[in-house]
Amino acid sequence: MATKAIAIWALALNYTSLSTPVLDIATKSIYNWAGCAIGGYDQAAPVAALAAVTPFLGSQGNSTIFGNGMLVDAQTAALINGVASHADDYDDTHRDNPIHPSGPVLSALFAVAEWKAPVLGEDFVTAFIAGVEAECKLGVSVYPAHYELGWHITSTVGSIGAAVAVGKLLGLNTTQMQQAISIASVQVTGMHDSFGTDTKPFHVGRASQNGMMAALLAQAGLSGALNGLEADKGWTHVVSTQENLKAEVDTLGKTWEISLNTFKPYPCDRIIHAAIDGWIQLRAQALEKGLNIADIIRVGARTNPMVLFLTDKPNITTGVEGKFSVYHVAAVALLYGEATPTQFTDEVVRNATVAALREKVTVVNDETVTEHEASVTVEFADGTKLEYHVEHALGSFENPLDDKFLKTKFIEQVTRSIGQAKAEKAFSAYIGIANATDVGALGRSYRT
Amino acid sequence: MATKAIAIWALALNYTSLSTPVLDIATKSIYNWAGCAIGGYDQAAPVAALAAVTPFLGSQGNSTIFGNGMLVDAQTAALINGVASHADDYDDTHRDNPIHPSGPVLSALFAVAEWKAPVLGEDFVTAFIAGVEAECKLGVSVYPAHYELGWHITSTVGSIGAAVAVGKLLGLNTTQMQQAISIASVQVTGMHDSFGTDTKPFHVGRASQNGMMAALLAQAGLSGALNGLEADKGWTHVVSTQENLKAEVDTLGKTWEISLNTFKPYPCDRIIHAAIDGWIQLRAQALEKGLNIADIIRVGARTNPMVLFLTDKPNITTGVEGKFSVYHVAAVALLYGEATPTQFTDEVVRNATVAALREKVTVVNDETVTEHEASVTVEFADGTKLEYHVEHALGSFENPLDDKFLKTKFIEQVTRSIGQAKAEKAFSAYIGIANATDVGALGRSYRT
Repeated sequence: MATKAIAIWALALNYTSLSTPVLDIATKSIYNWAGCAIGGYDQAAPVAALAAVTPFLGSQGNSTIFGNGMLVDAQTAALINGVASHADDYDDTHRDNPIHPSGPVLSALFAVAEWKAPVLGEDFVTAFIAGVEAECKLGVSVYPAHYELGWHITSTVGSIGAAVAVGKLLGLNTTQMQQAISIASVQVTGMHDSFGTDTKPFHVGRASQNGMMAALLAQAGLSGALNGLEADKGWTHVVSTQENLKAEVDTLGKTWEISLNTFKPYPCDRIIHAAIDGWIQLRAQALEKGLNIADIIRVGARTNPMVLFLTDKPNITTGVEGKFSVYHVAAVALLYGEATPTQFTDEVVRNATVAALREKVTVVNDETVTEHEASVTVEFADGTKLEYHVEHALGSFENPLDDKFLKTKFIEQVTRSIGQAKAEKAFSAYIGIANATDVGALGRSYRT
Repeated sequence: MATKAIAIWALALNYTSLSTPVLDIATKSIYNWAGCAIGGYDQAAPVAALAAVTPFLGSQGNSTIFGNGMLVDAQTAALINGVASHADDYDDTHRDNPIHPSGPVLSALFAVAEWKAPVLGEDFVTAFIAGVEAECKLGVSVYPAHYELGWHITSTVGSIGAAVAVGKLLGLNTTQMQQAISIASVQVTGMHDSFGTDTKPFHVGRASQNGMMAALLAQAGLSGALNGLEADKGWTHVVSTQENLKAEVDTLGKTWEISLNTFKPYPCDRIIHAAIDGWIQLRAQALEKGLNIADIIRVGARTNPMVLFLTDKPNITTGVEGKFSVYHVAAVALLYGEATPTQFTDEVVRNATVAALREKVTVVNDETVTEHEASVTVEFADGTKLEYHVEHALGSFENPLDDKFLKTKFIEQVTRSIGQAKAEKAFSAYIGIANATDVGALGRSYRT
């Protein structure tokens, strides 16, 4: 009974049993998420989503939309913060799996923590970890078959993680938690055909809201299956052709999935990060040798086949599409020497120089190359050919972002929205979240 | 480009081009839905769902929850009416497919029509038909593979039908409609593991809300795939192992799916209706012969294998479970001579006589028996054996409910909620919907 086992484990999880490394990466995951939710709000998707639900907003609400400081009801906050947190494709990623664990869980959990204030930091962090462990065990249990079918695994498992986290915070009993998991599991959101459109971050917001509502519905007495994950016609069998759920559930509390979390240095699909690293290196080499980027005649990469599976978008016109175009990231890495939010605007995507360089890029599948590895090349008109091999992309598990990078990333994202002084205050607030006596006050504490 | 073809066809559909038979069955579908949405509100599921969302209700709203007359915002009304309309399992069904077409589409459409009042009856009916055609073409195109995977096809296609209907009412352009279809298509709600729980009707409410929101999101500028249905990693390929979408889309406006709609005489899974007809006949025969129902020692049925696939629930304790138990319907048909909402209460399910008779029932799969056919038997202690063969279940396409039955069904359901006088008024209102100058006023017109 995997559903019941997850419910029991999650409800029993206790803050005092959590190790320092687990708590440390949980805190990093939280502030990295907050940076994305605040900074990502300037993308089109969260703004459009808020416009769509504005006619339904109640007059009251005490959950914050982190990107604009607006107070709304919890179901709206979960949606909009979830969309914003994924809109820049700048969030976190599980080592073994393209799950971005924090978005669906924290968007729901912060909304509920503000609504049900005061929530202790310890309880919040424990519920967050419970949700992440549940969603990642599920994700690992159906990966890669589920993903290869075309599901956006972040949102498909994320709603269940959100239900577990919120259910724990609400104090559901075991039966209610099983039902919450099942109610979340029958709402499967997110497919690959949305990648490169605003619907992709919408998946995360809706998943967060679905999970939150599943917990509330179970609490309100809506009955559901007790075995939603493992039933013959339940989640694992309906959405995947392979699954290993029982074995994964047996590792709960033994292998901590959150300790496998990693953070993105570039706001775009993680699968192209290794190649970006390589092209940034080649630009530096070229400049050192006195070569001119304008003289590049060919750009190449040998990468894991997942790169072309996900990012084979040569003809693009929007910043969002740029995040899923290996050709675009090649061009900006070589032209700008970086890949930050400013390289993924509509303007840069439509820039003639960038577009011309995109056309010179050829990517070749190589099954022997890992997902965090890439071999890249650049050829110049004078015949010079530069090559670089990236073994472990920056931000991968083997080559993680250090604390300084993570802080800089947070400050830069949040400064875009509220200025640097408040950004520094916000960083201090989130880094101390485990000691907060009222998590709900955090989102407001740094705005004044 | 099936997504675009559906968008263009739906937007172009015109009231004056609709034939009288199509309009006639559309009207029946609408009042049958209204009866279910009003009468079904006394089930546990809509009440629990409303309790869960009550903390988020705004102070304003002009969309009616039909079962209780409460005015709420449109996204809440779509959810709660959708849940209520399916809570009794008393709604409509497509001839070739277990889709209940009206629930997801009308729950969204009424909510929006009240919000965006005044909406003309002609426009409402045309949008409704567009939504039903879209959802049923989709459903037929992936049936049975999609259903056999475990998806609850009513809600999985229903959200897309709702998006099309609402999108047409809102006046989306073609691109927005394609995006609305895609945004709805990536939110796939409903699995068989929920059957027999409150989560099953929740599927319908959430699908309705998802579709409505998809149209609003597209209108608000949230970008989405333009080819969500046919994309390699889009709806048909992700949720089914077989599809025939292009061929089905080519029949839009030629084969009218709504003309294949049928209505249920019993508030339970349609697949057991033929057997219920048979057992009701056998009870009558037994009484005529002076036999005593208490002397039954064995009850049998030979039915299509889908009967046991969906309703093999011998051990049940709730009324909702009774709707998915072939054993329970055998017992109540024989003991009460009918299968109305009163036979699907927790009390009747727990009644010792009913429970004892359930245990005497054996059902055998027979692939040569159609889904609307059944051969049933009853054996008595004195050795008498009665047999009956039902070729076309009451309410099937070949043996439809007549106008009188449909009216009686409506009046009985609605009387449960608002009394007979208002029920009669309501019937007059809904039967004249095509001529209404403000559809939004309908839900309020019969309450005073």
